[in-house]
Amino acid sequence: MYHHIKKLMYTVNVGTPDPRFGNMLLEQFGGANGELAAAMQYSIQGLNCDDPDRKDMLMDIGTEELSHLEIVGILARMHLKPMKKSRDSAEADPLIAIAGGGGVGLFNSMGDAWTADYLKITGELDVDLRSNIAAEARAKIVYERLINFCDDPGTKDALQFLMTREITHMKAFTAALESLGKDPFSIGNIAPTPGLVDEYFNDSTGVGDEGETDVRGPWNEGGEWKIVEPPELEQGVEAHNGKTVAKTRKDDIEQGGKTRIKKSA
Amino acid sequence: MYHHIKKLMYTVNVGTPDPRFGNMLLEQFGGANGELAAAMQYSIQGLNCDDPDRKDMLMDIGTEELSHLEIVGILARMHLKPMKKSRDSAEADPLIAIAGGGGVGLFNSMGDAWTADYLKITGELDVDLRSNIAAEARAKIVYERLINFCDDPGTKDALQFLMTREITHMKAFTAALESLGKDPFSIGNIAPTPGLVDEYFNDSTGVGDEGETDVRGPWNEGGEWKIVEPPELEQGVEAHNGKTVAKTRKDDIEQGGKTRIKKSA
Amino acid sequence: MYHHIKKLMYTVNVGTPDPRFGNMLLEQFGGANGELAAAMQYSIQGLNCDDPDRKDMLMDIGTEELSHLEIVGILARMHLKPMKKSRDSAEADPLIAIAGGGGVGLFNSMGDAWTADYLKITGELDVDLRSNIAAEARAKIVYERLINFCDDPGTKDALQFLMTREITHMKAFTAALESLGKDPFSIGNIAPTPGLVDEYFNDSTGVGDEGETDVRGPWNEGGEWKIVEPPELEQGVEAHNGKTVAKTRKDDIEQGGKTRIKKSA
Amino acid sequence: MYHHIKKLMYTVNVGTPDPRFGNMLLEQFGGANGELAAAMQYSIQGLNCDDPDRKDMLMDIGTEELSHLEIVGILARMHLKPMKKSRDSAEADPLIAIAGGGGVGLFNSMGDAWTADYLKITGELDVDLRSNIAAEARAKIVYERLINFCDDPGTKDALQFLMTREITHMKAFTAALESLGKDPFSIGNIAPTPGLVDEYFNDSTGVGDEGETDVRGPWNEGGEWKIVEPPELEQGVEAHNGKTVAKTRKDDIEQGGKTRIKKSA
Amino acid sequence: MYHHIKKLMYTVNVGTPDPRFGNMLLEQFGGANGELAAAMQYSIQGLNCDDPDRKDMLMDIGTEELSHLEIVGILARMHLKPMKKSRDSAEADPLIAIAGGGGVGLFNSMGDAWTADYLKITGELDVDLRSNIAAEARAKIVYERLINFCDDPGTKDALQFLMTREITHMKAFTAALESLGKDPFSIGNIAPTPGLVDEYFNDSTGVGDEGETDVRGPWNEGGEWKIVEPPELEQGVEAHNGKTVAKTRKDDIEQGGKTRIKKSA
Amino acid sequence: MYHHIKKLMYTVNVGTPDPRFGNMLLEQFGGANGELAAAMQYSIQGLNCDDPDRKDMLMDIGTEELSHLEIVGILARMHLKPMKKSRDSAEADPLIAIAGGGGVGLFNSMGDAWTADYLKITGELDVDLRSNIAAEARAKIVYERLINFCDDPGTKDALQFLMTREITHMKAFTAALESLGKDPFSIGNIAPTPGLVDEYFNDSTGVGDEGETDVRGPWNEGGEWKIVEPPELEQGVEAHNGKTVAKTRKDDIEQGGKTRIKKSA
Repeated sequence: MYHHIKKLMYTVNVGTPDPRFGNMLLEQFGGANGELAAAMQYSIQGLNCDDPDRKDMLMDIGTEELSHLEIVGILARMHLKPMKKSRDSAEADPLIAIAGGGGVGLFNSMGDAWTADYLKITGELDVDLRSNIAAEARAKIVYERLINFCDDPGTKDALQFLMTREITHMKAFTAALESLGKDPFSIGNIAPTPGLVDEYFNDSTGVGDEGETDVRGPWNEGGEWKIVEPPELEQGVEAHNGKTVAKTRKDDIEQGGKTRIKKSA
Repeated sequence: MYHHIKKLMYTVNVGTPDPRFGNMLLEQFGGANGELAAAMQYSIQGLNCDDPDRKDMLMDIGTEELSHLEIVGILARMHLKPMKKSRDSAEADPLIAIAGGGGVGLFNSMGDAWTADYLKITGELDVDLRSNIAAEARAKIVYERLINFCDDPGTKDALQFLMTREITHMKAFTAALESLGKDPFSIGNIAPTPGLVDEYFNDSTGVGDEGETDVRGPWNEGGEWKIVEPPELEQGVEAHNGKTVAKTRKDDIEQGGKTRIKKSA
Repeated sequence: MYHHIKKLMYTVNVGTPDPRFGNMLLEQFGGANGELAAAMQYSIQGLNCDDPDRKDMLMDIGTEELSHLEIVGILARMHLKPMKKSRDSAEADPLIAIAGGGGVGLFNSMGDAWTADYLKITGELDVDLRSNIAAEARAKIVYERLINFCDDPGTKDALQFLMTREITHMKAFTAALESLGKDPFSIGNIAPTPGLVDEYFNDSTGVGDEGETDVRGPWNEGGEWKIVEPPELEQGVEAHNGKTVAKTRKDDIEQGGKTRIKKSA
Repeated sequence: MYHHIKKLMYTVNVGTPDPRFGNMLLEQFGGANGELAAAMQYSIQGLNCDDPDRKDMLMDIGTEELSHLEIVGILARMHLKPMKKSRDSAEADPLIAIAGGGGVGLFNSMGDAWTADYLKITGELDVDLRSNIAAEARAKIVYERLINFCDDPGTKDALQFLMTREITHMKAFTAALESLGKDPFSIGNIAPTPGLVDEYFNDSTGVGDEGETDVRGPWNEGGEWKIVEPPELEQGVEAHNGKTVAKTRKDDIEQGGKTRIKKSA
Repeated sequence: MYHHIKKLMYTVNVGTPDPRFGNMLLEQFGGANGELAAAMQYSIQGLNCDDPDRKDMLMDIGTEELSHLEIVGILARMHLKPMKKSRDSAEADPLIAIAGGGGVGLFNSMGDAWTADYLKITGELDVDLRSNIAAEARAKIVYERLINFCDDPGTKDALQFLMTREITHMKAFTAALESLGKDPFSIGNIAPTPGLVDEYFNDSTGVGDEGETDVRGPWNEGGEWKIVEPPELEQGVEAHNGKTVAKTRKDDIEQGGKTRIKKSA
Repeated sequence: MYHHIKKLMYTVNVGTPDPRFGNMLLEQFGGANGELAAAMQYSIQGLNCDDPDRKDMLMDIGTEELSHLEIVGILARMHLKPMKKSRDSAEADPLIAIAGGGGVGLFNSMGDAWTADYLKITGELDVDLRSNIAAEARAKIVYERLINFCDDPGTKDALQFLMTREITHMKAFTAALESLGKDPFSIGNIAPTPGLVDEYFNDSTGVGDEGETDVRGPWNEGGEWKIVEPPELEQGVEAHNGKTVAKTRKDDIEQGGKTRIKKSA
């Protein structure tokens, strides 16, 4: 059950309304990484969650995001209000101006309606927590960019509050994931195929126009890693009983595709 | 520049086509966590990436996902083919049957057209890597569920291959993130507000119908954590100079909303 | 600011889970006339509202709908849970089964992601109240249909609760609209053109295959109504200074389009 | 069966094309409250309608809206045409300029493709009429806003014509609804639960930053209304046999959620 | 201006309603290649068209498609009607059953709302005509598939009528395109680069699992065609002054990406 | 299986970045007629294709379009990069600036996420080839418009390359279609109804405000064409045994709908 308290979680003060900045703010109201997306993702994960401990956390944070949605909405509303009367302001977001009368709607900065396609909900707790960690990181960087484009001190204060809370949530989700005590690469119940799981396929090769080349780093070298290069890859990969077997079909491929050409009937 | 080799990365064998399972497989062809989503997310992150080392990795893995898309497409195609002729099969996915003639399209198992709203691309490398780690975890669990609903040994083999590769990628992205050497909660350049960042807001309280209560765990207790309870929260949170100041407005809230009622004009 | 109380607003009891009914229930979770649509429509109207009295009402009802969303979500979750393990159940909604692990998501019964395109928010209070009255009527009829397709007594009880509340809200919105004291056809500030406003254009004529014909009723006859028939309509309607002037352009139209035919170059 | 007459229902004259205004006009061509939405909503309701009298009205008005779509399209086309050649104009709507060559498409002012998600069609006649009344009110206010942003006299004339017709339709739908002779809150066949239906839940309480408080008005006071305050609400609402029974579970809730805390394992 | 005549363009007789077939029929009501898509595509092209001769044709055919939309809608309505009462029927399309009360809506067979993203409108007449020829071919094959899944003679008659008309329109659009007298590969005003335009890039090579190989046919051999093979392609293509110059950067690529590997910092 | 070569297919040089032009370029990256749409349409058609000869061609061209996607992406990236830092640039596309940090995403010039609804894939080879011919014509005209709005010589060079390739593909698809040796109006297996197929319905009549009238051209006159005028049309068309029979129902229609009016109950 939800209850609404009329007070904002963080009091909003806006000096001079800036409709074009108000339009940008909509990214965090009705955008892909915005507050409704956060509120819905965590609350619905909570609703599905069978672990009562982490369910409590999901509901705590999901509810806080609803309060954030309200803050962003009020902020955007104050910046967008001139759109109702000023033709010049209206051009910054005609959808808000004409269809919305200068009021906010669940749209992003380009007028796209919010969609649940933004959400990542799998019903697998540790997977969902990973999605949430990433979601908070994205929201943090979006708030940072908004702060960088903002001139109004009161608005910046509120954005700093909201940005800070994303890091709080990132920490909480990370602690919740770690407290599950699972191996970081153990997802679900079916084990990946040994051997194959450590093969790094070198699928992009050559030298780029700016001199880019193949690179070795801890993501493909050291530990168990084994790099598989194109000539081997192109023979096909078959995994049985935990080891990778190159299926041999003699004379299979000739470079450049110049052979085995048949005429179309 | 891309090149296509006619051979599949993993040879597909299907015993008895199962159109309803073919419909399920579309989740990994045109669905939210499917192979096109993976291919596009990583490849476009790579295109935007200014770090030439991790850009190489993003292109390697993005390209591998294109090869996976082809495998899933061929698998689904083989399972869906009876839809062209059998009315009973066609009912499993009339869109594929009637609009597609039994061929695959970029739809999920419920016929929703693939949309770039599924993608998470921020242009901030460490953030993108977190999104990718989560994306691979989601893809892994989806393949596991497909395997659990599948009876055909050849199909299961191919799905096991694809599922394994998701863990490979999860490892690579994790190593790439760690090799950046950043603090795990340091995102972007603007620091979160000290003090406030360690406050955990207890926004969901009470006792649930099945006895759910508030819980303490490493996500809100220990270390720097400080829990803020509703009475304090409801007075409003203001953050200045690194510490949280409860804004005092006397007599602000009365429980139950029974006071300060004014008549509507 | 929002607060969550762990108790459901209405306790849910489900006897035998019925996954296909759970799929139907999603209409009221993530569907066009469902609880999220109601919660968002009223809450965002409230956020934009400059009339503090009716704003309070919009927030009261918007918040109640969030509590309803939670009830429907729990109900659907209980009916959908078998999808995680049973292939037969999974076929009722493969998206929920495979991508969601049997947990609810913000989709309707056909797997369409919830979209803010469902919402009607104009920032004009009396217009918004009309949209809300209609929204509640739609939600009521959808709950009635769900009850009619439902066999489980506990589920029916909860649906009866939810259905009843829609009528409560319909009454409240109607009272709020009437208390504004405006003429029922006075919207905004610009007056419609007198005369023209009372003309009923008879744009569909003839006799249908089942004998349908033109009908006169209080929507086109009596009071100020004046019916305009096709021959007059087809000469073009021009409104100046409050009266409708039929623009006369001699020989303008010949029935059947057989005249004035020119050859294409 | 439809027939097209080459003459516009209202002759359009545009003085100086204004591409940014043309972009705004698209709200009424391919937007959520625009003419295609109206035409499709009423015509499809008519197609489904079993009441031959009101079906005739739905077809009359649905067809008129098609003629309006044509007028708005021609108006927008005339304002948008400079986009084809002028880079500055093209920036007002690059989608129209580059993909459309300066011609209109079924997009709104922010380039969103028209979607049937805008429509409200339930197959329940009185409910559909309420949706239509609200739809006409929305369309009226949108035309008013367009008129307020418009400088061109010929365009204003056409918009005044279109705006007036929305009120005409609002009157017709209202008369049609009233002529059904139903109780205004009687929707469908299943009666709401007596008692519960008259309870107003006070779900938003406290005092806002600008002094907003709880309000009593005809939407929650007088007549049968009974206000339910949060402490009672939070115990859970159960409705049996026409009266609301508060489910008593002793010691259920402690304010602030500070008790019953258990440690996470 | 439009006019509606109550008579259907083709009288519809349905023997036994078949709700699952009714669901399939929605492909041609609210689907990607359906009648609304056709009506809107041609009518809006007509609205934008500056060639008065072909504009007349676009309006003729666009209007006919509206009459087809009505026929398909009535057909589908008759097949879907049992959904209102029968739970078993309702499972064929819960969206229609529960949200629509058994009435049609602008959805396809999988419940996706119709979207203007289906339309192809460029404002370039000859290009639009090519899009229309393709659209008619698609609609024809969809009707054929529906006929093949249909048991009801009356429904088949109506579908045969509709299918036939698509070929009529295909002929008309083809004649209109040919009568423009343009070179078939001359689009717009800017000439393609000579030489380069005749190069066929062999971007897919090798031998497939079922023996697929490179093929020569009239689409890459004979006439002006020149095939460019991968080794040449991979050096980069630069077109100046009408001829293709291979940009030489010595030692550029080594097969397999085994060289120029640098260590990640 | 796919392989990526780091070199661009066409080397890109950008003089002065132009963020508003970069925004326009997104039409060809994530827009309806852009390179991803082309790549996916042809590659998935190829995946479904049972004709090994034309399948090779579909894979060749589908793969080339992936290489084009990369070129457009790099071009757009270079033009959009200033958005990360400049508020003025950011206003050209706030979604790219704020959510994307100045990096490209799969959006069009108005921020709409790419959707598979843009694709035309039917699983019927000759139909798909027609869709491809039209798609290439659309892409060509879009590139031409971009060139016309572009000031940067390096960008123009790359666009000229891409535009030229569309004509190449148009030629290849046309040759592939013609080499099938089918009658141009023979689609699928069911023959259209003789007689009816040659009737041109004159559904738009009268004289327009600018003097538009009915036109005769090769699309409705000559050869087998027979024009059917409204009076005949409005009696209903019934096709049996290969000839069109006007169903006679006496006194069926009276002009203007003035008769047979019944009073609403």
